[in-house]
Amino acid sequence: MAQAKLTIDLDALRANWRALDALSAGETAAVVKAGGYGLGAGKVGRALAQAGVRRFFVALAEEGAALRQALGPGPEICVFSGHMAGDTEMIRDLGLVPMINSIDQMLRQVEALPGAPFGLQLDSGMNRLGMEPAEWAALRDIALAQNPVLIMSHLACADTPDHPMNARQLQVFREMTDGIDVPRSLAATGGILLGPEYHFDLTRPGIGLYGGLPFAEAAPVVTLEVPVIQVRELEPGEAVGYGGAFTARRPTRIATIAAGYADGLHRIMGPKASLMAGETRCPVAGRISMDLIGVDVTDAPEVPEALELLGQHQTIETLAGWCDTIGYEILTALGPRLNRAYRGE
Amino acid sequence: MAQAKLTIDLDALRANWRALDALSAGETAAVVKAGGYGLGAGKVGRALAQAGVRRFFVALAEEGAALRQALGPGPEICVFSGHMAGDTEMIRDLGLVPMINSIDQMLRQVEALPGAPFGLQLDSGMNRLGMEPAEWAALRDIALAQNPVLIMSHLACADTPDHPMNARQLQVFREMTDGIDVPRSLAATGGILLGPEYHFDLTRPGIGLYGGLPFAEAAPVVTLEVPVIQVRELEPGEAVGYGGAFTARRPTRIATIAAGYADGLHRIMGPKASLMAGETRCPVAGRISMDLIGVDVTDAPEVPEALELLGQHQTIETLAGWCDTIGYEILTALGPRLNRAYRGE
Repeated sequence: MAQAKLTIDLDALRANWRALDALSAGETAAVVKAGGYGLGAGKVGRALAQAGVRRFFVALAEEGAALRQALGPGPEICVFSGHMAGDTEMIRDLGLVPMINSIDQMLRQVEALPGAPFGLQLDSGMNRLGMEPAEWAALRDIALAQNPVLIMSHLACADTPDHPMNARQLQVFREMTDGIDVPRSLAATGGILLGPEYHFDLTRPGIGLYGGLPFAEAAPVVTLEVPVIQVRELEPGEAVGYGGAFTARRPTRIATIAAGYADGLHRIMGPKASLMAGETRCPVAGRISMDLIGVDVTDAPEVPEALELLGQHQTIETLAGWCDTIGYEILTALGPRLNRAYRGE
Repeated sequence: MAQAKLTIDLDALRANWRALDALSAGETAAVVKAGGYGLGAGKVGRALAQAGVRRFFVALAEEGAALRQALGPGPEICVFSGHMAGDTEMIRDLGLVPMINSIDQMLRQVEALPGAPFGLQLDSGMNRLGMEPAEWAALRDIALAQNPVLIMSHLACADTPDHPMNARQLQVFREMTDGIDVPRSLAATGGILLGPEYHFDLTRPGIGLYGGLPFAEAAPVVTLEVPVIQVRELEPGEAVGYGGAFTARRPTRIATIAAGYADGLHRIMGPKASLMAGETRCPVAGRISMDLIGVDVTDAPEVPEALELLGQHQTIETLAGWCDTIGYEILTALGPRLNRAYRGE
């Protein structure tokens, strides 16, 4: 068994949702796009449904279809990319709720699925998805006559609380929607933390559920343990791995462990990365290769059967710091070859 | 349908194998670890079996089990990580051939599966996997008496042809194995290109099959097309995406496309990346987010339904250059959400 083990703590996931729900003024949904941020949308979705989530968000209709299979009928599944050409059957047969983001999509929805539930996505300044103020002014009366179930927008800078963009987007969203008798949603995790004026009727936490920043109080959800295949002793001057990028400067013990960049452990983190052998931090020795990593375990009193890459000592934010990215990407990069084990199912 | 489409050209894959086979002095195997370098081990394995491959290599016994299901009985499936605790049943029931890399593994193999086929992995200087010269000297007679089917080692610097490590490893491998009447293997793609003295009885190409360097003559195997969800017009001064990282300096047309770092498109490539709208190169505008990318399509005469990220104009090496990595990682990072379509099945 050389398969690395990714343990997903569904109790921690549910605790994070409850904490964000307690902070939210209205209903609290859950974002489970990108396969539940890489942790398994079905398992994550079912665990959150148990905790009380009644509305889920995914990126694509295909993700919505897979989630419906896992959840069964009942929970609402909203699709951020809206109603694309080719999506009609999935939306209809699986009861998905597209978040319509353009006039084109609005026409497609109303023509193909008259009377079916949908939401409206407005652009309040991010210029990514949703109708802009001018477009919205032209379409608004027609769209509202079709009884949307939700009007939403998304914040571009919510992870930076004092960014002036937040207040500006809030104001634009208000101007576009005040007085409309449809539930509204603006905030994801970062927006929840900005305070209740950003919450409206529904919040949509994503990263905070999975233990990531900006929700600093989040409980960590993932542990990643990588089996040791082989241990060897090096003399000073011997090199390790591709390009001989690590050279031993003292008598050195190297553990070769069974994971690599094919498992989503970004190759560029190599020189900065370390793993834990019990309480001992052990630096990566040389390049991360596709399936294997050399680790300098010289200072560990003993070499356990597996080294810990993610856990109590090193979080997704730690790894993100090693490769100039954000915790979100560390999670979604975790590859399909990892053996996912669920705690608290 | 907002799902991005990854097209895998199995004809090109087979052509690459045939080209590397023509360069190889002896038998030519195929490395299909990491899910066939991210392209689907089952489909890739079956296509290569059709082309004549009789021996495959994977990283883990679990990968071997999945490949056996796809290939059926017949082809030999070798496991680089060898025989780990817990692997015995898979090795026995699915007829896998572990590449034994330590005395511990040798004992496990001989005790649990006496008489079953296995290979031997020697360390000729990479200090990653395999028995070292001293270990090998002690074990050699016992190991050879068990009739290994292959003796192999791996080159650390084969992608750099003039690196002195290549000749040194060749010499060590020869010293460890000359005179032994067992088939030998040292070369992967890079080793094939170093010339016939590196080939021995069996070569094990990986990256070259999939269109990557160092096999510069390889035919490209992958095309990645990302659907456009929405197009919007920006006035100068308007910003796009998270953190407002892109600001329009002219009247600008932005296409929001349906892929992101959750699909393995590394977030850090953002500022350098571009996509093709037909023959027009269109730069990424702002940050790559989890499921969406803004693209500046102002210069495109028209906006097609999908933009091309990988194809004739931009290869895996192009993308690798944008994020300081190698083509191998671009391939293996391609995420499970992409719709994989196979040409030449």
